[in-house]
Amino acid sequence: MLVVMEKNATSEQVEAVIHAIENCGFTARPIPGGDRVSIGVLNNDGPVDAGLFISLPGVKDAVAVTKPYKLVSREVQPENTVVTVGEVSIGGGVPVLMAGPCAIENESQALTIARHVRAAGAQFFRGGAFKPRTSPYSFQGLGEEGLKIMARVRAETGMPIVTEVMNETTFDLVEAYADIIQIGTRNMQNFTLLRRAGQSAKPILLKRGMSATLDEWFMAAEYILEGGNINVILCERGVRTFVRHSRNTLDLSAIPVVQRESHLPIIVDPSHAAGRREQVAPLARGAIATGADGLMVEVHHTPEKALSDGAQSLLPDQFAHLCRQVRALHEVLATV
Amino acid sequence: MLVVMEKNATSEQVEAVIHAIENCGFTARPIPGGDRVSIGVLNNDGPVDAGLFISLPGVKDAVAVTKPYKLVSREVQPENTVVTVGEVSIGGGVPVLMAGPCAIENESQALTIARHVRAAGAQFFRGGAFKPRTSPYSFQGLGEEGLKIMARVRAETGMPIVTEVMNETTFDLVEAYADIIQIGTRNMQNFTLLRRAGQSAKPILLKRGMSATLDEWFMAAEYILEGGNINVILCERGVRTFVRHSRNTLDLSAIPVVQRESHLPIIVDPSHAAGRREQVAPLARGAIATGADGLMVEVHHTPEKALSDGAQSLLPDQFAHLCRQVRALHEVLATV
Amino acid sequence: MLVVMEKNATSEQVEAVIHAIENCGFTARPIPGGDRVSIGVLNNDGPVDAGLFISLPGVKDAVAVTKPYKLVSREVQPENTVVTVGEVSIGGGVPVLMAGPCAIENESQALTIARHVRAAGAQFFRGGAFKPRTSPYSFQGLGEEGLKIMARVRAETGMPIVTEVMNETTFDLVEAYADIIQIGTRNMQNFTLLRRAGQSAKPILLKRGMSATLDEWFMAAEYILEGGNINVILCERGVRTFVRHSRNTLDLSAIPVVQRESHLPIIVDPSHAAGRREQVAPLARGAIATGADGLMVEVHHTPEKALSDGAQSLLPDQFAHLCRQVRALHEVLATV
Amino acid sequence: MLVVMEKNATSEQVEAVIHAIENCGFTARPIPGGDRVSIGVLNNDGPVDAGLFISLPGVKDAVAVTKPYKLVSREVQPENTVVTVGEVSIGGGVPVLMAGPCAIENESQALTIARHVRAAGAQFFRGGAFKPRTSPYSFQGLGEEGLKIMARVRAETGMPIVTEVMNETTFDLVEAYADIIQIGTRNMQNFTLLRRAGQSAKPILLKRGMSATLDEWFMAAEYILEGGNINVILCERGVRTFVRHSRNTLDLSAIPVVQRESHLPIIVDPSHAAGRREQVAPLARGAIATGADGLMVEVHHTPEKALSDGAQSLLPDQFAHLCRQVRALHEVLATV
Repeated sequence: MLVVMEKNATSEQVEAVIHAIENCGFTARPIPGGDRVSIGVLNNDGPVDAGLFISLPGVKDAVAVTKPYKLVSREVQPENTVVTVGEVSIGGGVPVLMAGPCAIENESQALTIARHVRAAGAQFFRGGAFKPRTSPYSFQGLGEEGLKIMARVRAETGMPIVTEVMNETTFDLVEAYADIIQIGTRNMQNFTLLRRAGQSAKPILLKRGMSATLDEWFMAAEYILEGGNINVILCERGVRTFVRHSRNTLDLSAIPVVQRESHLPIIVDPSHAAGRREQVAPLARGAIATGADGLMVEVHHTPEKALSDGAQSLLPDQFAHLCRQVRALHEVLATV
Repeated sequence: MLVVMEKNATSEQVEAVIHAIENCGFTARPIPGGDRVSIGVLNNDGPVDAGLFISLPGVKDAVAVTKPYKLVSREVQPENTVVTVGEVSIGGGVPVLMAGPCAIENESQALTIARHVRAAGAQFFRGGAFKPRTSPYSFQGLGEEGLKIMARVRAETGMPIVTEVMNETTFDLVEAYADIIQIGTRNMQNFTLLRRAGQSAKPILLKRGMSATLDEWFMAAEYILEGGNINVILCERGVRTFVRHSRNTLDLSAIPVVQRESHLPIIVDPSHAAGRREQVAPLARGAIATGADGLMVEVHHTPEKALSDGAQSLLPDQFAHLCRQVRALHEVLATV
Repeated sequence: MLVVMEKNATSEQVEAVIHAIENCGFTARPIPGGDRVSIGVLNNDGPVDAGLFISLPGVKDAVAVTKPYKLVSREVQPENTVVTVGEVSIGGGVPVLMAGPCAIENESQALTIARHVRAAGAQFFRGGAFKPRTSPYSFQGLGEEGLKIMARVRAETGMPIVTEVMNETTFDLVEAYADIIQIGTRNMQNFTLLRRAGQSAKPILLKRGMSATLDEWFMAAEYILEGGNINVILCERGVRTFVRHSRNTLDLSAIPVVQRESHLPIIVDPSHAAGRREQVAPLARGAIATGADGLMVEVHHTPEKALSDGAQSLLPDQFAHLCRQVRALHEVLATV
Repeated sequence: MLVVMEKNATSEQVEAVIHAIENCGFTARPIPGGDRVSIGVLNNDGPVDAGLFISLPGVKDAVAVTKPYKLVSREVQPENTVVTVGEVSIGGGVPVLMAGPCAIENESQALTIARHVRAAGAQFFRGGAFKPRTSPYSFQGLGEEGLKIMARVRAETGMPIVTEVMNETTFDLVEAYADIIQIGTRNMQNFTLLRRAGQSAKPILLKRGMSATLDEWFMAAEYILEGGNINVILCERGVRTFVRHSRNTLDLSAIPVVQRESHLPIIVDPSHAAGRREQVAPLARGAIATGADGLMVEVHHTPEKALSDGAQSLLPDQFAHLCRQVRALHEVLATV
């Protein structure tokens, strides 16, 4: 942190700031400038609260210089984290494909879709058993019955499953069934859930919050790593902006920045970003070409009858075409 | 919902949409226009998913016409909800003042601040025992010990207490101590917590999510009302925008819109919106003059030593001055 | 500017950055920290481009420390700028009221409204002769004829007039008629227009851009001051955010921040922020209580027939009530 | 437009709305629903102002149903517009590459960069002679001398040139030199400039405004088409959001939506979106894979000495690599 003094700050004011910094146990390093003095705050362990200094007399601003995260930082771990589930690696250089319906509706629906997406090349089956819904009147998912159906789909197709956990009460249950546990957008800063995820032996897929900065997202992942679970996969799914032509604005610039700042893999969910089928495949291709480590895509064979998110689900044929494009993009970018 | 057809949609496409609407159990009412046909969707109970129709051939758009909330709507309950705690009414025409530190640090700190804010005119003491923090390395609150301190403050000063609940595991505990239970910004769409709050006999103070639309906020409140708890107080606390000169952008236009659309009271938290002390009193005055039913303000007698949010805490004298201004503004607006 | 090196930056990399800074004619001051080195850039005259350093090897970030504006800064001029037009002062402690229709439609309309707003207490008559419209098919204003009508209104009522200039071609014409020249939101960074305004002897009312930061707004004002025209009035009118219940999100926190950072007066336009009549008076009261130096409000006696912005225009009686409230708020805040 | 009545609206209120609609010369079509009446507004030519109805008694809302643009709409012209400059087609199925420095600094710099980008495969040379700069103290471009240098570059290399026009005063001058005239982000709603562009025989590259919706962007293009110039190329360059890790947030979902709604070609500028070199190539690849009709990229051979935007300029080798990737992506997507 750098504490910037006003141009006309007195030397007594500068001294008082130095004293305040040292009182917190940090080291103060004054930096006389042309116009004004700034004072560096050094030897802090963890983030420094700007509020400790910003309201002292003569202080103009307090500017954060270093990042608050540690364990997720590439400065701490230079090599990529590769999350392995069965025979599939996430973050290992080949894009991974997770696909399935928004919500598990019944066994026939789940199996039908799973067979389609496996045939198209998906490595993971995704589906929701516990569904966070904006309206209390909307379908809330099948709950444990949905998890059991997913387990049967796994037994039948061999695909590991990704499903969302909504709260700590059902965490053990979801953990018992899932191969990868998803923490959703609305729970990215549910710190109780993050702490519980930190104690899990299963990989965690952590979706970015609707209006989360990368620092906030990294800090949410830090909760999980700090708890001892190093298998975290980040998932960009669009952020809320003034834009209305897509449900959310997919922020593909997060991919190169995450890959520079952190060692964790990052995949992209184009379905929730788009909210409309015709944008999904273009954005999915864009994500892969930008460098994403994988995709999570909603697929439904009868989207007009889906109990949720039908509008953004690809049809099986569309998904199969997308898979061919993803493989071709990956191959060409690996060689050019 | 209105399904808008493309200009060149065929009559077969129009028929197919009508059929799809009727298959959902709704009534379809075609509206021939100058250029194109639109089809109204009627007799739906609850929100209609645009996705059911938007991807059918010949459909250009599907536009929501009515609002998805019911119990929170002023159309359902025309008269204001007034939440009463002891002798204080929230939403009854006189602005209510809730004040205290961000976090309870120890009994002496809590009591000192409580006495200051009571003397200044606050009716509620606010303080955090369980603190949602962006960083796992930051102070997380005193937990149950914080609740006990707040109970002693209440016994000593007579002020009812407002404190945040972070998860369902500690809900019973917080409920046992609090007079008003706060659900924080990051939990506005923690639906498990909202369902539990719906079963509580205590009033719920529901903060707006960082990037929540009013419809989403109303739907979060709808979860609580639907569960049977009608004592919900909304709290605007700023939303995330591109603006960086305040921590969040306080959206005071929410006040007249909430008051038009809903019967629930709405208060304002200028402290978290501002993030900096010097903006707090101006925004607090602005909120009252705009018509807020009250304020929740952070106050600390030694903010430079506060364990969290020191930068945005008012000093006791500043808070006392603000209270005098709030009373004066209320009186003058009641008469002019 | 502070150039922050990576933890593992080599001393050769640090030297190269120092060299690059000195090559630009600035002074480099290395600041060894606990973990990493940072290098202060001193003696720069004007903003430093982070791009000059950020891509050098071993550099993690380049953080702006000081502000790019000079003439608008309170550090350069500590006392408030008070803009005087005839007998009215803007920024002198008493809130000023500017009111009138969005667009001048004809003399009878303009005079009718002007008499209403003067009777209610407005000091300035506002009206548009050249109208920037999103659609080429919308009413574009009466042009010079509108200016002539405003001049007759001024002659008749004694009210000085505020009107918008859209381009440099018509600047001389608008300047000849207006008492205060408005530069609109969409032109806040029309630098040609700003340079021309810098050469005018008339005060400039500079509206904030739809998504302008305060620094960008100050820099736009800096163009005008740098040209020699020191009579600039800032006007907050809402910014674009994800929020849809008002046309724009009024950012009242800009008021205390502008008043801290700059000596220029700041007024508020609640009409364009709201976009709907019922929000205008609440937001206008909020702006005054927050500390605005005045208001600019749209008023129309037959808004259902207005050629533009009818939905957000107050009726004369509503405006008169608002004026009484504004005066009462100002008086009470001046004494409490 | 659909005017939605409140549930308890009286039949007199409904009649009054119908009357108001018909008074405007439109047709009113009442649609009785389950709970409430809505009234369709038909036979309007151009956008209808919601304000005309929204404040009438008993009206709850007024919802736009159709789009305000005409000439840019694919409903009006189903086939793609292909803009041809010399032998190069934009929008014809093969992505076009425009590259060069942010600002023309001198002939040697311009020629050096032009040769590099031509060798790499760029078809257009871009460079700024008139530069819109946030600060009045920053380099403002060489003006006409810059245009002359670009003309010599064209003569030397055979590349047509793209350059920005900042105002109507210099439009004739820029038009005389440029092969494609760029209207920048800050001028997207400079309606005077748009009208002038509508009279030009040269193609216009219209950048999206910093916070423009697609409708606003389309309406800006509509000004140009309405004036008679049908050769408009849209350019997505990132929008302003809360995100800070890139300068702006590149909105790639605009590509499929523009291609669905309009016949105009759309290219992408990843340099201004990113603001940092290391994000440019990933975003550029993402844009091509999403389906953009081309790219505009900043390139500089000595970016650490660039007079503007050095941080986001690719080095010639990086650009050459990107060109190979773009060609490979295009080929593979054309065949899979």
